Amino acid sequence: MIIVLKPGITRKLESTVLAEIRKRGYRPHVMRGVARTVVGAIGDELTHANLETLVTEFPQAVESVMPIQKRYKLVSREAHPADSTVTVRDQIIGGKKFQVMAGPCSVESEKQLLTTAEAVKAAGATILRGGAFKPRTSPYEFQGLGEKGLKLLAKARRETGLAVITELLSENHADLVAEYTDIIQIGARNAQNFQLLIAAAKTGRPVLLKRGLSMKIEEWLLAGEYILANENPNLMFCERGIRTFETYTRNTLDLGTIPIIKKESHCPIVIDPSQGAGRADLVAAMCKGAVAMGADALLIEVHPNPAEAWSDSAQQVSLDSFAKLMRELRPFIQAAGRE
Amino acid sequence: MIIVLKPGITRKLESTVLAEIRKRGYRPHVMRGVARTVVGAIGDELTHANLETLVTEFPQAVESVMPIQKRYKLVSREAHPADSTVTVRDQIIGGKKFQVMAGPCSVESEKQLLTTAEAVKAAGATILRGGAFKPRTSPYEFQGLGEKGLKLLAKARRETGLAVITELLSENHADLVAEYTDIIQIGARNAQNFQLLIAAAKTGRPVLLKRGLSMKIEEWLLAGEYILANENPNLMFCERGIRTFETYTRNTLDLGTIPIIKKESHCPIVIDPSQGAGRADLVAAMCKGAVAMGADALLIEVHPNPAEAWSDSAQQVSLDSFAKLMRELRPFIQAAGRE
Amino acid sequence: MIIVLKPGITRKLESTVLAEIRKRGYRPHVMRGVARTVVGAIGDELTHANLETLVTEFPQAVESVMPIQKRYKLVSREAHPADSTVTVRDQIIGGKKFQVMAGPCSVESEKQLLTTAEAVKAAGATILRGGAFKPRTSPYEFQGLGEKGLKLLAKARRETGLAVITELLSENHADLVAEYTDIIQIGARNAQNFQLLIAAAKTGRPVLLKRGLSMKIEEWLLAGEYILANENPNLMFCERGIRTFETYTRNTLDLGTIPIIKKESHCPIVIDPSQGAGRADLVAAMCKGAVAMGADALLIEVHPNPAEAWSDSAQQVSLDSFAKLMRELRPFIQAAGRE
Amino acid sequence: MIIVLKPGITRKLESTVLAEIRKRGYRPHVMRGVARTVVGAIGDELTHANLETLVTEFPQAVESVMPIQKRYKLVSREAHPADSTVTVRDQIIGGKKFQVMAGPCSVESEKQLLTTAEAVKAAGATILRGGAFKPRTSPYEFQGLGEKGLKLLAKARRETGLAVITELLSENHADLVAEYTDIIQIGARNAQNFQLLIAAAKTGRPVLLKRGLSMKIEEWLLAGEYILANENPNLMFCERGIRTFETYTRNTLDLGTIPIIKKESHCPIVIDPSQGAGRADLVAAMCKGAVAMGADALLIEVHPNPAEAWSDSAQQVSLDSFAKLMRELRPFIQAAGRE
Repeated sequence: MIIVLKPGITRKLESTVLAEIRKRGYRPHVMRGVARTVVGAIGDELTHANLETLVTEFPQAVESVMPIQKRYKLVSREAHPADSTVTVRDQIIGGKKFQVMAGPCSVESEKQLLTTAEAVKAAGATILRGGAFKPRTSPYEFQGLGEKGLKLLAKARRETGLAVITELLSENHADLVAEYTDIIQIGARNAQNFQLLIAAAKTGRPVLLKRGLSMKIEEWLLAGEYILANENPNLMFCERGIRTFETYTRNTLDLGTIPIIKKESHCPIVIDPSQGAGRADLVAAMCKGAVAMGADALLIEVHPNPAEAWSDSAQQVSLDSFAKLMRELRPFIQAAGRE
Repeated sequence: MIIVLKPGITRKLESTVLAEIRKRGYRPHVMRGVARTVVGAIGDELTHANLETLVTEFPQAVESVMPIQKRYKLVSREAHPADSTVTVRDQIIGGKKFQVMAGPCSVESEKQLLTTAEAVKAAGATILRGGAFKPRTSPYEFQGLGEKGLKLLAKARRETGLAVITELLSENHADLVAEYTDIIQIGARNAQNFQLLIAAAKTGRPVLLKRGLSMKIEEWLLAGEYILANENPNLMFCERGIRTFETYTRNTLDLGTIPIIKKESHCPIVIDPSQGAGRADLVAAMCKGAVAMGADALLIEVHPNPAEAWSDSAQQVSLDSFAKLMRELRPFIQAAGRE
Repeated sequence: MIIVLKPGITRKLESTVLAEIRKRGYRPHVMRGVARTVVGAIGDELTHANLETLVTEFPQAVESVMPIQKRYKLVSREAHPADSTVTVRDQIIGGKKFQVMAGPCSVESEKQLLTTAEAVKAAGATILRGGAFKPRTSPYEFQGLGEKGLKLLAKARRETGLAVITELLSENHADLVAEYTDIIQIGARNAQNFQLLIAAAKTGRPVLLKRGLSMKIEEWLLAGEYILANENPNLMFCERGIRTFETYTRNTLDLGTIPIIKKESHCPIVIDPSQGAGRADLVAAMCKGAVAMGADALLIEVHPNPAEAWSDSAQQVSLDSFAKLMRELRPFIQAAGRE
Repeated sequence: MIIVLKPGITRKLESTVLAEIRKRGYRPHVMRGVARTVVGAIGDELTHANLETLVTEFPQAVESVMPIQKRYKLVSREAHPADSTVTVRDQIIGGKKFQVMAGPCSVESEKQLLTTAEAVKAAGATILRGGAFKPRTSPYEFQGLGEKGLKLLAKARRETGLAVITELLSENHADLVAEYTDIIQIGARNAQNFQLLIAAAKTGRPVLLKRGLSMKIEEWLLAGEYILANENPNLMFCERGIRTFETYTRNTLDLGTIPIIKKESHCPIVIDPSQGAGRADLVAAMCKGAVAMGADALLIEVHPNPAEAWSDSAQQVSLDSFAKLMRELRPFIQAAGRE
């Protein structure tokens, strides 16, 4: 911790503050600068967290208190300098091969899901997405098929060989969902639902953690830390757009997270342009940007008939558009040195 | 729904769009304006939700699609024009009497809790707050005393007669928490954890629903709708600051929500200035503003020794400061026509 | 400056960084902590500003660089512990008396302005606002009456004795506007138009500086510093709402700025609830909050016939509503210890 | 305009609203829906702008008023379906060739500028950037060399043949800056300084308009409208990052603006990753993304010795890094079908 003292305080008041710092288990280290005196409090901040109150306890003496240490450990690149990878079935996420996860926003019927699964596989996707439990802003909207949806995903997996990713909404469903899926998705609205993160981690399945709507990078990394600290090493981060003042798009897709996550963490980074834009007509450009910037995978909403989708229809691309998109991505995947 | 057509499209293309609108169960109503033709699609939007795809299906013809109906019903003032109130023990929230809920961020020990409870009661608070289960950004921070904390809250209630409010973090704890508390608090990070909202509603206990960090008013009202739609009429909204670009304070307390919630809904509105500011030195001014603007209650973090608090120590006020604050609020409560 | 070194770097690399810090005119002060080594660089940051590049120059060695000193001086309460006041005609802003500035968004005609001026004076306002030069998002919207508007303001001042405030949009109009007005207003969109700030300061007229739409407190104080540094001591800050993700209101009025500006600066703080809400029906509650929280003055848009206003009609209150509002504010002004 | 009436109002009140709509020059068109009655007000919204007050004038009757027409015309793709291009010297921006504008944040000396100009030219840039007038958050920071800086830019142009872009800060400098530069840059802080936009347009020089820190797409397009409406057809939009809650980077670069500007407007779109990230280590990835997503040009800060730069040193890349970046971009430029 760095404690910045106010200018012009008495030596006596300064001593009181220093004594207090010592009392809380830190060793104070005084630096007298031109305009301010600054105190470094030496000690492990992860175990002693309460110097921040000095500002309110000694309002005449203390101007600000700033932390120094990073708060995350296991997800950090410092802890694990090489890239880590996640393997599902025979596919590696975070390796040389660029992966595409695709499928409908919600699982609606056997026909809808199997048609989509076959089409996305033919176009080059290796992982099938589909929501069985859906978090909906309004209680009057379609909430997903539940276990029936999970069974359809399992069937699609058997028939196509694609791995499956689906969202976990409730701690109580953790075992059920884990039974049917290869990857557990944690949605943006639950990104700081720590009980759910722990439950997901404990299933042992790889976890794809979406960024919350207004989650800072540090908070996202710390939410990921909940997965690794609960002994599940298979974590992927997924950027899906943040909430800003802009209203043209549903969210603002923050593609800058790709180099940032690569710098701060060893875990793979996946981009979801469908949620990010909320508009199918912007998805293709965003996919190209994600590939060029070094993302490890894409998560794309695809529907055989977007107009009749039971949820988020405006942002799902058709089977044809998806196949076209996959062809257009090829030169960019190559330019990025991926397969 | 209002469908705005692009300028200069052919009558044939227009007919195709109109036919599609009819096919989806709406009656189209065409208005030819100076610069644009606009179509009103008449039908109940709560049951037919999929006209928004027209933008992507007919990109040459459709410029935008706008909803007309409000998406919330039970929480709306239209549904219930009079103010609703919530009664806990012998206290009414939302009535003539201005209520103050106060207590520590986390329950830490019997001594800490009872000292605080007695002090806040003496100063005029009627409801005791205290966290037993704590949602923490980092897995390495103090996570609360759990059931032991709930038991201490129950003891403080017995000894002081204060009602109790505490946070529910997990669906699995709903019955346990309901057993010990008078009001269930849903925290900002769980404000769109719909499974938790349903579990809280079903306990039958009054629910205080904090606004999520980047939740729009409409989404907050819809999250409240989850409580009322699950047959629990005792809902209070609680503003605790939103996330903005400003870094001087931890959050930006949006006091404008007081007149807005009063206008849109019949449910009481509570202000939490401690989370809102994240700094004890700004709490007093924010409380005065909340009272003057018509809030029904305050939720304030108070600790016998903020410096030694196990969580959020920078934002908790001391017992003395709290007593002083309560005295300072009196003229404003009077000016607002409250008791 | 505080330079945080990466964990585990060699002593040799550390020495290189320390040498570089010395080379740039600072004295390095090393503190070896548990997890990190931290270097305090002692020297005046206002004259040596370039240590921040160490992060990119020594990416293996330097984790982050944090400034310590406050960047503003003249506006800070440290520089001037007592409250400063601004006197226009016989009115003092920032003193015991609570001041109200009111009038139309735009000056439209003699009749409109004089009717409003008389009505707001009768209701208790002491300063007349009115825009002669209007910044408009679209080039096709009404841009103000210009000099003709200034002359009408001067006439209203002569006839009512009210002081006048109006916005300055262009450096080229600084002398012209100063000739007719008692206070120069700098609008939100020009809050970091530094050339305009300098031109306004040099007229010698008191300046009311609105907060930019996404301006941090520190940036706002620094923009104010441009006024004081150009030898004009008569500065008022005016909060008028910031831009956030919320779309219910036009802006989010940040009333927390009242205690913050009072803490950081000696200059008066004025609240503009009309721009803040963008809706006349929320103005009254926001005024009450502002008074209770310690604002020095209000700036309210009032129009004899809001529906026919040539700009921002949705946010202007009628003459009757204004008179009612002034009556309702009285008990809160009293409770706040003002006149 | 679309006027949404409240449910359950009397026919008499409805008639009053309809009469009012007619009085303001619109033809009302009533649609009775299941839950609401909606009125289309037919008339040109660009000339009649005041129906929005109906909400406050008839609070019992009118729930909301929504505009239908787009507010921008000349910049819109509707007005000009083909891409427009801007030619400076022998270079075309917006055509087949991908353009790179590069140079120091501030012009500091002849040596610094010429060294940079030659290096960026050798690496493939065609336009030289450099600030002579600098907008600085603090009055105590370096404000640019002014006219001396312009003369150095002109000299660099003569010696290298590169075109020049520099920022205009003050209406009073418009002619002076236009004399020396090929492109006038309007900075983010002045993006809604409409007087400056008009002054820039009137010089006849091409204008590069940066997006304001919290400017919505629509506002940005309307600011561009000020250029075209003042008879200057040579407009480029430049995304440079918006202000969000995230603090890891200085701004959040919104690369989604590339497909959006391409869709809404015919004008070229340029990306500035240096301001966007505020960190040199993220610039390369952002450039690759911009190229892949279809940007027409990049604007990159390059300095022979970033550590000694007089402004924004943390975000400038070195000459070597720039040359390396240009090599790395080549496969992406090719994949995007550009030269």
